[in-house]
Amino acid sequence: MNASSKAAQDVSALMDTMGRAARKSASALRLSTAQMRNGAISHAANLIDGRSDEILAANQKDMANGRDKGLTDAKLDRLLLTPDRLSAIAQSLRAISTMPDVVGEVITTLTPKSGLVIERVRIPIGTIGIIFESRPNVTADAGALCIKSGNAAILRGGSESFHSSIALHACLTEGLREAGLPGDAVQYVETTDRAAVGAMLSGLKGSIDVIIPRGGKSLVSRVETEARVPVLSHLDGICHVYIDKEADPAMAMEIAMNAKMRRTGVCGAAETLLIHKDFPADQTKSILAALDETGCQIRGDTAICSLHDRAVPATKDDWDTEYLDAILSVAQIDSLDQALAHIDAHSSGHTEAIVTNDAKTAERFLNEVDSAIVMHNASTQYADGGEFGLGAEIGIATGRLHARGPVGAEGLTTYKYRVRGEGQARP
Amino acid sequence: MNASSKAAQDVSALMDTMGRAARKSASALRLSTAQMRNGAISHAANLIDGRSDEILAANQKDMANGRDKGLTDAKLDRLLLTPDRLSAIAQSLRAISTMPDVVGEVITTLTPKSGLVIERVRIPIGTIGIIFESRPNVTADAGALCIKSGNAAILRGGSESFHSSIALHACLTEGLREAGLPGDAVQYVETTDRAAVGAMLSGLKGSIDVIIPRGGKSLVSRVETEARVPVLSHLDGICHVYIDKEADPAMAMEIAMNAKMRRTGVCGAAETLLIHKDFPADQTKSILAALDETGCQIRGDTAICSLHDRAVPATKDDWDTEYLDAILSVAQIDSLDQALAHIDAHSSGHTEAIVTNDAKTAERFLNEVDSAIVMHNASTQYADGGEFGLGAEIGIATGRLHARGPVGAEGLTTYKYRVRGEGQARP
Repeated sequence: MNASSKAAQDVSALMDTMGRAARKSASALRLSTAQMRNGAISHAANLIDGRSDEILAANQKDMANGRDKGLTDAKLDRLLLTPDRLSAIAQSLRAISTMPDVVGEVITTLTPKSGLVIERVRIPIGTIGIIFESRPNVTADAGALCIKSGNAAILRGGSESFHSSIALHACLTEGLREAGLPGDAVQYVETTDRAAVGAMLSGLKGSIDVIIPRGGKSLVSRVETEARVPVLSHLDGICHVYIDKEADPAMAMEIAMNAKMRRTGVCGAAETLLIHKDFPADQTKSILAALDETGCQIRGDTAICSLHDRAVPATKDDWDTEYLDAILSVAQIDSLDQALAHIDAHSSGHTEAIVTNDAKTAERFLNEVDSAIVMHNASTQYADGGEFGLGAEIGIATGRLHARGPVGAEGLTTYKYRVRGEGQARP
Repeated sequence: MNASSKAAQDVSALMDTMGRAARKSASALRLSTAQMRNGAISHAANLIDGRSDEILAANQKDMANGRDKGLTDAKLDRLLLTPDRLSAIAQSLRAISTMPDVVGEVITTLTPKSGLVIERVRIPIGTIGIIFESRPNVTADAGALCIKSGNAAILRGGSESFHSSIALHACLTEGLREAGLPGDAVQYVETTDRAAVGAMLSGLKGSIDVIIPRGGKSLVSRVETEARVPVLSHLDGICHVYIDKEADPAMAMEIAMNAKMRRTGVCGAAETLLIHKDFPADQTKSILAALDETGCQIRGDTAICSLHDRAVPATKDDWDTEYLDAILSVAQIDSLDQALAHIDAHSSGHTEAIVTNDAKTAERFLNEVDSAIVMHNASTQYADGGEFGLGAEIGIATGRLHARGPVGAEGLTTYKYRVRGEGQARP
């Protein structure tokens, strides 16, 4: 056997073992109490605080590797842990542990004529496989949200955050054990071999009930081709801001700047700006200049390039690109219909916003744009579970089924019908 | 080009055309009014009544073919249309047309500190592909539920019901047109070539948003291998009834008989009966005898065969078989744990029932059995949207995501977040 087929066999054996462990621990989690689950999460939070030096040192190793690999500043920023960010992670876990329990809730009660009492009860999904980019905080948040909702989890983070994620994951494992739950209820894939992703997408012989992919284009296409289990997509965010002819210029400026530049590395960051041709040209110029001054590269169509001489001509690919960086594609648009058609053709179904003072135009946009989140006169950077008041989130779902938009603990549950009778036989 | 590759190309071209038509009509349906959608459904109901002779003649053609093919009595019964059954189909459509609208409902309103007003609004999924067995009524019900919920649909029924389905589908097409909606919002796959199923499972180049398969084992495995789009499974119903040692004998008799024999061809029919070893042997004998007398074949384990001499020894496969016929596999069980383990290993996640007077045992069963519907002291034949008071159903979902159990119009919707601001930029 050559080295590469040996490695493939090793990954396959590792993943099978993880699948079996998940199946077993999922049953334990499903029947656990909220007190145990919350205890596990708050223990983990304390462990993160207690081990901050160790975790930050692991992160420094990842940061050094990342710089060697030539990661962009935006990617390095997503990777970086500071004492403040780490204590925010612990704080986020504490917030999750004190949130109301979502498991066991009776969603509806039906009392049909037969006399049966039928309850729709919220239950955990089972085992959740999460494939995500190199953001260490996701390891902690995603793991904790799975525990909160009574699910087992198999986490596979990006290879650049490997050491940080392993250090954070160890806190979850110990937290689970301290609470009397199986430590392997949340497992982390401790290999950077990409075959592990393929194994997860196959469902590990029925051990994974749903895959949550969080990432960009390359993950999207891999998931579409290989997934053999239900997928709750948290994929690229190609978010659009449309400045209508009736937009307030100051508001348009503020929203465009904020949507692009507040944080360029988040999935709710705008990647494309559409500006109506009758929005005043001098205002368009001011917005482009302001973006430029804060370090944003403008990639424009012909009309935009003629208004802003530092703009680079956009290529066909630009309209389908999630930059996650200080780059913005900008097009001039003739009508609302054209804006809707552009969004329909290029959006990833994440978040789109319109800036306008025309109520009718706003309603058409909100009604007709088919994305998880549609906004009127607000920055796309509000696309966030915390900002929606939903608490911590696993991400923003871009698919159409089960859950859309910000997904928290509730989105990680399903339901069953519990029927109580007194001997009823159906006539 | 040989004949078979020509045929494959024809199917592929046909399906592509259907996909494009669905995409276009889905937009029209998404933006249609409830009045138009309800009008289309009630027009279709009137057309079904008006054309009953024609539809029944088409059904006679299917029945003759079915008898030639040697279909089982249970399958012929599922295929048969009578004047009464046909008028029940029209009546079911009228009931769907008068049900409350599900599209546009504001499910929740969030008002976070930022001042944004965030609504979670119910919207159609898009285009729904439904692959189902040879039951003509499903063509009408499924088509009408898709229209009701603002979705386009591509229907592919079993080949045995081809003529009946085409005749019923024509009523939906005309109903849509009379209401001013595109006639091809509900399309029927007018080829019995199984390549059409493969094309649907591929998603028709993004034109199908979700596949709803309804059927047995062969469809299950095909869907698992080939589906490239989200699937809302309505698959086999291997339903169990467990008679506990504390079961009331008369109730156990009535529920066992009803769960198996009321209608053997429905997915909620029991396929396996588990009987606790301490349930009185003479009562077990009576139940087996009563089933036998109504024409049910018993396939038993060793213990059951020793109690009922007309029982046939069950093979390994029997415990995983959906008979949809007057056949029942029966096992003697030592404990609740063993019953739970048997169900965990062999259930299809549809419906399971326990008969017991022991409240603790009942609660453990309801809590630990991981199926879409779990019942205490009631017949599994109650697994039905109508009996749940949910109105017409597309079927009983056996998957874990989006919708479980009886799925009606609401299960064919998703939601989006509609956010209204006053110029908010995120700090």
